[in-house]
Amino acid sequence: MVGSIEEVKRLMLSFDADKVAERIILFIREMFEESGAQKIVIGVSGGVDSSTTLKLLVDSIGRDKVLALIMPHQDITSRKDLEDAYMVADHFGVEYYTIEIADICSLIRHRLSPFMEFDEKTYGNIIARTRMITLYAFANSMNAIVAGASDKSERIIGYFTKWGDAAADIFPIMDLYKTQVRALARHIGVPESIAEKPSSPGLWKGHLAEEELGISYEKIDAILFAMNELHMGPEQIKKIEGIEEDEVELVLRLITTSEHKRKLYYPQVQDLIVKR
Amino acid sequence: MVGSIEEVKRLMLSFDADKVAERIILFIREMFEESGAQKIVIGVSGGVDSSTTLKLLVDSIGRDKVLALIMPHQDITSRKDLEDAYMVADHFGVEYYTIEIADICSLIRHRLSPFMEFDEKTYGNIIARTRMITLYAFANSMNAIVAGASDKSERIIGYFTKWGDAAADIFPIMDLYKTQVRALARHIGVPESIAEKPSSPGLWKGHLAEEELGISYEKIDAILFAMNELHMGPEQIKKIEGIEEDEVELVLRLITTSEHKRKLYYPQVQDLIVKR
Repeated sequence: MVGSIEEVKRLMLSFDADKVAERIILFIREMFEESGAQKIVIGVSGGVDSSTTLKLLVDSIGRDKVLALIMPHQDITSRKDLEDAYMVADHFGVEYYTIEIADICSLIRHRLSPFMEFDEKTYGNIIARTRMITLYAFANSMNAIVAGASDKSERIIGYFTKWGDAAADIFPIMDLYKTQVRALARHIGVPESIAEKPSSPGLWKGHLAEEELGISYEKIDAILFAMNELHMGPEQIKKIEGIEEDEVELVLRLITTSEHKRKLYYPQVQDLIVKR
Repeated sequence: MVGSIEEVKRLMLSFDADKVAERIILFIREMFEESGAQKIVIGVSGGVDSSTTLKLLVDSIGRDKVLALIMPHQDITSRKDLEDAYMVADHFGVEYYTIEIADICSLIRHRLSPFMEFDEKTYGNIIARTRMITLYAFANSMNAIVAGASDKSERIIGYFTKWGDAAADIFPIMDLYKTQVRALARHIGVPESIAEKPSSPGLWKGHLAEEELGISYEKIDAILFAMNELHMGPEQIKKIEGIEEDEVELVLRLITTSEHKRKLYYPQVQDLIVKR
């Protein structure tokens, strides 16, 4: 049992980064070899998740087998993010292409606008899914697999576009909470400016994850870690110093309402057919 | 133990279609109510799977809560398929919109063609994923959920576009083999011409499922049913009269090579972090 949020953070961050990196690197190498693919493709946004995943790919299979796609949307992606994406790709010495996706997304909006109003979220989901389409077109054409950059925090609270950014073939950092990804990033040589950069899905101008979620990843991760790794119940977590009751409720709500993004729903019927 | 393919087919088809339909209809209603959605959106191709799913949706929540999207690609979709899609939507009295997707898919191809050669499959996957984007844009804008029309045969052998046609919120017929879907279709009043129509994903001109797969669904389903529902091993199945050894091998290969479409691959690492 832990008493304060600092204690949870200490537990969450007291890991042997070499061992974690090694496990992930082996996983990537095995998946890559089993797949029979020639390359791994990854979308690089200039954020901490994709930069860390990129570095792990390079460390695992070598930079000549990794292709980075930088997919800005000219009306939405900030100049800073774009520069960060280029900086990271250069820093790790991987080949990259830039695919501007604004015209594709605009055409989709234009074609569908007679039927609907477009809010930021609807359009943002189109952006995330267009990036998926682009990554897979490259993967199809060059016999590659797609690496996703989703982390464990985003996955559990459902902070991703269904069939969009969380649609990939392998997910190297999916068992690491965002806070842990930042620590691992620093350890494996991701530039500090990227490791500490606030998280953003980049689906509209000035889009910031913590602002949209209404809670910091520091809190989210402490709550998720206490729940999933320390096996504490909600009532126990609410008693942790530095964590408020309504923060726990919010995280629980995020988990529940996003369950549909992680599950496949269909009715079993074969038991009606084959009598046992 | 069964001796001939006819016996397997008899077992597979000897079901109470009313009971199966009832189970699926209840499932749809429950999912719809739990989701808090106003509508269910479905892509209708004029094929047996989407037509059957459409009818089950209508029987479950009423035709005024169902929206059908017909999404032809002018260079690829045959006139016959398009007419069938309209016929089905009219037959069940649901509201529908037609969204021609050729211009969107062409633009994507045009933007990516400096980087790659497009074969039929690469372009076909773009078509399937563009349909997914369109369905979800409608769902986002009208507070709807998306119904998928994948059946059990396609799912198990991986005959679908990853993050494309098999990307939806609920899958009413996913536990029914294609052969069973045809039988259920007839029972619930899907027009006979649709119930018996050869299956096609519609990703290129004249695209036929059985031709691409190199084996008939009659065989595929008999093998899958024997394997999954009658719990027979491959060697036993090869002895069934009417099923050839290489047909069993082919189906096994389809299952194995498509495993990645049904699984989420990531390395567990939290056991390195929380010492137990």
